[in-house]
Amino acid sequence: MVEIDRPRSAERIERDIETLAGARFTARADAICRYAYIDVYSNTLRYLTDELERLGFRVGYDPVGTLVARNRPSGEPAFGVGSHCDSNRSGGKYDGTMGVVAALEVCRLNHELGLGLSIQLISFFEEEGSGFGQMLLGSRIMAQRVSEEDLHERIRAIDDGRTFWEHAEDAGFEPSRWRESRQILDGLVGWIEMHIEQGRVLQDTGCRIGVVTAIAGYVHADLTVTGRADHAGATPMDFRMDPGVVAGEAIVELERLARVAGGGTVGTVGEIRFTPGIINVVPGEARFSVDVRGVDQDAFGGVAGEIRRFTEESARRRGMQASFAERQVLPATTMDQALVAAVEAAAGRTAEPYRIMHSGAAHVTMCVAPSVPSAMVFVPCKDGISHSPLEAASPADAALATEIILNAIQSWLSASRA
Amino acid sequence: MVEIDRPRSAERIERDIETLAGARFTARADAICRYAYIDVYSNTLRYLTDELERLGFRVGYDPVGTLVARNRPSGEPAFGVGSHCDSNRSGGKYDGTMGVVAALEVCRLNHELGLGLSIQLISFFEEEGSGFGQMLLGSRIMAQRVSEEDLHERIRAIDDGRTFWEHAEDAGFEPSRWRESRQILDGLVGWIEMHIEQGRVLQDTGCRIGVVTAIAGYVHADLTVTGRADHAGATPMDFRMDPGVVAGEAIVELERLARVAGGGTVGTVGEIRFTPGIINVVPGEARFSVDVRGVDQDAFGGVAGEIRRFTEESARRRGMQASFAERQVLPATTMDQALVAAVEAAAGRTAEPYRIMHSGAAHVTMCVAPSVPSAMVFVPCKDGISHSPLEAASPADAALATEIILNAIQSWLSASRA
Repeated sequence: MVEIDRPRSAERIERDIETLAGARFTARADAICRYAYIDVYSNTLRYLTDELERLGFRVGYDPVGTLVARNRPSGEPAFGVGSHCDSNRSGGKYDGTMGVVAALEVCRLNHELGLGLSIQLISFFEEEGSGFGQMLLGSRIMAQRVSEEDLHERIRAIDDGRTFWEHAEDAGFEPSRWRESRQILDGLVGWIEMHIEQGRVLQDTGCRIGVVTAIAGYVHADLTVTGRADHAGATPMDFRMDPGVVAGEAIVELERLARVAGGGTVGTVGEIRFTPGIINVVPGEARFSVDVRGVDQDAFGGVAGEIRRFTEESARRRGMQASFAERQVLPATTMDQALVAAVEAAAGRTAEPYRIMHSGAAHVTMCVAPSVPSAMVFVPCKDGISHSPLEAASPADAALATEIILNAIQSWLSASRA
Repeated sequence: MVEIDRPRSAERIERDIETLAGARFTARADAICRYAYIDVYSNTLRYLTDELERLGFRVGYDPVGTLVARNRPSGEPAFGVGSHCDSNRSGGKYDGTMGVVAALEVCRLNHELGLGLSIQLISFFEEEGSGFGQMLLGSRIMAQRVSEEDLHERIRAIDDGRTFWEHAEDAGFEPSRWRESRQILDGLVGWIEMHIEQGRVLQDTGCRIGVVTAIAGYVHADLTVTGRADHAGATPMDFRMDPGVVAGEAIVELERLARVAGGGTVGTVGEIRFTPGIINVVPGEARFSVDVRGVDQDAFGGVAGEIRRFTEESARRRGMQASFAERQVLPATTMDQALVAAVEAAAGRTAEPYRIMHSGAAHVTMCVAPSVPSAMVFVPCKDGISHSPLEAASPADAALATEIILNAIQSWLSASRA
């Protein structure tokens, strides 16, 4: 078992984080804003390249811009580490970037301590969707979860409306070879991503590390109840078809359904709109979003179906109609049980408080896990805040995570050699 | 008892309505848009003046622009009829204007049939608030329910932000004498306003006439629940403070409270906003409006208090806070029982279906009733639609109303002479 100099690693991680929060690496002064193909993003990859080349890594790109660095010739087995270093447009210093920086620290420690581990670092292109409005774009391209038409036509830059294809070519990449992006997983015997939790569970339970067993899948949908707009004063209660009341019932019911479903299921109504939306008019239409997630497919899928039926039935009982429109559905992703066990064993040996948990947020690992044994390590973030300049996380926790990842890799690679 | 030639009156009412929907009388081609001091509004008053002078009325204005016409010297007792002829900015042909036109028809019939009734017609200035954002402005000035500071400083034109005072002076009125506006009620022995219902009760119950016993008072307020915005995926149900769920509970509870309160109480949530309002974020704040009305002060006031307490308690139970901010409170206005009886008797004699009801909407009569025995007559409007170019009402129903009003006035005046 490797024990690292955690304070020194924390210091290096902090230095990397602060460097990458500097003016050359963000398009905004008051937040981190960094996305595909813009200068500050290229500068960030250049910084990582310099650091990795100093450790003897060969650094290259897949055909669209995902950074891939290896300390062994390609083709040879290696263990994958990394995350993404783009941000949302008003982001913090830690989401994504801290995972890449921790992966870089794993590479440094491997080099420094002469551990001889075969490592491949990946910084996935465009996870947050700030450039092209598409979450997990780089990892979905790698996982072949897009179509040529998507890349050629449908997916367009938020800034100028030009296609992904044009932007990729302008940046010197070869989008026509996008299918070859899957090759970046060739030879990978395992994958661990570190990330800030983006929730408050670790903080509120006093844990420094989360060992992730699964990433929640989700249903994103809209429910629209159509009633009849009427004068709020001149329309007695018995003469109304008020879709707002159906929305109210559904919000309360979704909470109940999620609580009883288990499997880490959560349900949220984050958006709501009454039309016309005037104090003295009974709404004619109520639209609200539902976000149902969980790691147990039957449980969260069941809740999505039940809230749909509940809303339709509540509307029907009041003489109205409800319609359900899916925005996006993603299945849950289970981590590799044996690799999770290796991570947990490594976490246990640190004697620091950790917990077994799942991830409610989506991560690039969702696209890696179907092909490569995968795990994730979470570190706490302050008050669960992410996607905000207020985001905060501790380099000391990230250093602890690098020690755990390093030990998990070592035990995993020796087991696979054995 | 007077019987009128209803088809002829319907024809004249229709002609007046259609005339006042013409290009000289509305600032928009696709809707009625007519408000204080603009040309199309002055043209409308000019049209009424011409018609009334033809019947021997002397037509003048109060100090701010409310039109007052009499067929007897001022000081002598008279019966008041009228409404308002401004519209909201995307209005229909009937709201307000049909009441003024029906009052004009009452004057015509009185003249034609030689009934010799003393009548004063009032077309109140600026009921809808399209000019200065203040509902019932003309009638509130008359009822001294504004302050000099309101008129001088606070109340400003929507179009240019200049004060009411400046606009009134520019239009040739004398706002400094606004307190004299109360004199327009001097000598009035009764008041009847006809108006479209703005609800669907008459249509849905197959009645042609509504005899109004009271105008609902109301509480307009906002409830704001403050929770904590969290990641919708990464925050388990037990770690949340979701103010949206409190809002959902309150919407459902308000409906229940209004139903059990009686006294014609209605409760509506017309506006709602979750912040930040993103599908995958647990809201940090939920704000919603409440509109509670009724003719029984204890009943509707009680509901307003109960929904406030319910929301505060529901928030507290979940570790959150709710705050209640009143926008406006208006007491219910009871019509004069004897005058209502006279109207009902006249309605009964027509053998047409009518119903005793209250008004859920506010009307200028709210400002007249405290000083003068008052009543209102409603006619149906299609599907309850008002404040819209889709507004529709039947001139035949309005003609029926003029017959009822004429007979009610006649019996009222002979009773007061007796």
